Amino acid sequence: MRILITAGPTREYVDDVRFLSNASSGRMGYALAEAAIAAGHEVILVTGPVDLDVPDGAKVSAIETTDELRMSCLELFPSCDGIIATAAVCDYRPRERVHGKMTKTGQPIVLELVETSDVLAELGAQKGHRWVVGFALESQDPRNNAMRKLRMKQCDCIVLNDTSAISSLENRVEILSPDAETQAEFTGLKTDVAAQLITFIEQRIAR
Amino acid sequence: MRILITAGPTREYVDDVRFLSNASSGRMGYALAEAAIAAGHEVILVTGPVDLDVPDGAKVSAIETTDELRMSCLELFPSCDGIIATAAVCDYRPRERVHGKMTKTGQPIVLELVETSDVLAELGAQKGHRWVVGFALESQDPRNNAMRKLRMKQCDCIVLNDTSAISSLENRVEILSPDAETQAEFTGLKTDVAAQLITFIEQRIAR
Repeated sequence: MRILITAGPTREYVDDVRFLSNASSGRMGYALAEAAIAAGHEVILVTGPVDLDVPDGAKVSAIETTDELRMSCLELFPSCDGIIATAAVCDYRPRERVHGKMTKTGQPIVLELVETSDVLAELGAQKGHRWVVGFALESQDPRNNAMRKLRMKQCDCIVLNDTSAISSLENRVEILSPDAETQAEFTGLKTDVAAQLITFIEQRIAR
Repeated sequence: MRILITAGPTREYVDDVRFLSNASSGRMGYALAEAAIAAGHEVILVTGPVDLDVPDGAKVSAIETTDELRMSCLELFPSCDGIIATAAVCDYRPRERVHGKMTKTGQPIVLELVETSDVLAELGAQKGHRWVVGFALESQDPRNNAMRKLRMKQCDCIVLNDTSAISSLENRVEILSPDAETQAEFTGLKTDVAAQLITFIEQRIAR
């Protein structure tokens, strides 16, 4: 198969220097890219800024903002069989980006944040015969929030992990089906979890 | 000498996952730590989250927020001969930090940002016989902004670099004295600039 994998954080700039982001290490996505290549698949990795070596054999598209992620995925998804979306996108961006670097004035500033576009929902809506595997990282009411995401993004399954997964070498995931069944649970190093997920996708998701 | 060096970005959390930060790599500060150790000095490195190996022989205090940087510096500065402050602190933090992870609602959100405390100004005000070397990264009116910082922070000199230095392996710096004279200019790899800066501090700043 030809698999599109998104990984890492995105950044949304307040000015030329400061941005909103998160501590996503990209490890889960990079581990999935390696596992997919090891299993004989072709991988295109759309990656935010992380400090990881690109897996041998992966094609890479480096992005910074959610909008760049969107453009890259819209271009690449049509030629792929499916997408595994592990990127921890910034859900919000400043409405305005200040040019240059804001200088302190001693006063508070008010930043209006608007939601970034929901890239996976957009891909899900046009998936056709392609499969879509989403990731959800939730701190409150995780199953319900994950299922809401699965439906909004038209995922074939969603991988639920909790906030302790960020920046960690390990992960514990639960895979939920569109009818809210637990299809599998994997625990361990992200590299091990990745290999099991790729096998799961081959056997249960890609048809 | 015993030198306190701050390096890297700080992070200011909006909720448990999202934060404001910048792309500071920490390279300038880590290169200065290495150069200082190579020159026979003792180094305490107060560092934000970066992907660099700690220089052999440096003592390290790992921090995330500007407030943690402040606590660490207030504790360590009194036992040092001087400070080189390269950390790219977040000048702003959200007034409130949301517990858990905010869930998207479809609506914009308004984030009130307040200035973080000026750690170097606080250290400068209590420096006594110690020396203070500041860094300024300015996009507009760089010399005047750097001189304003030098005075506010009671620096013995300030190292002016421009925004292209962020995340780069190279740097081009100008050292300004309290009477706004250019005392030196160094250009090249951050490792080379660091060695020259340490020599400059030994000869012109540390008395």
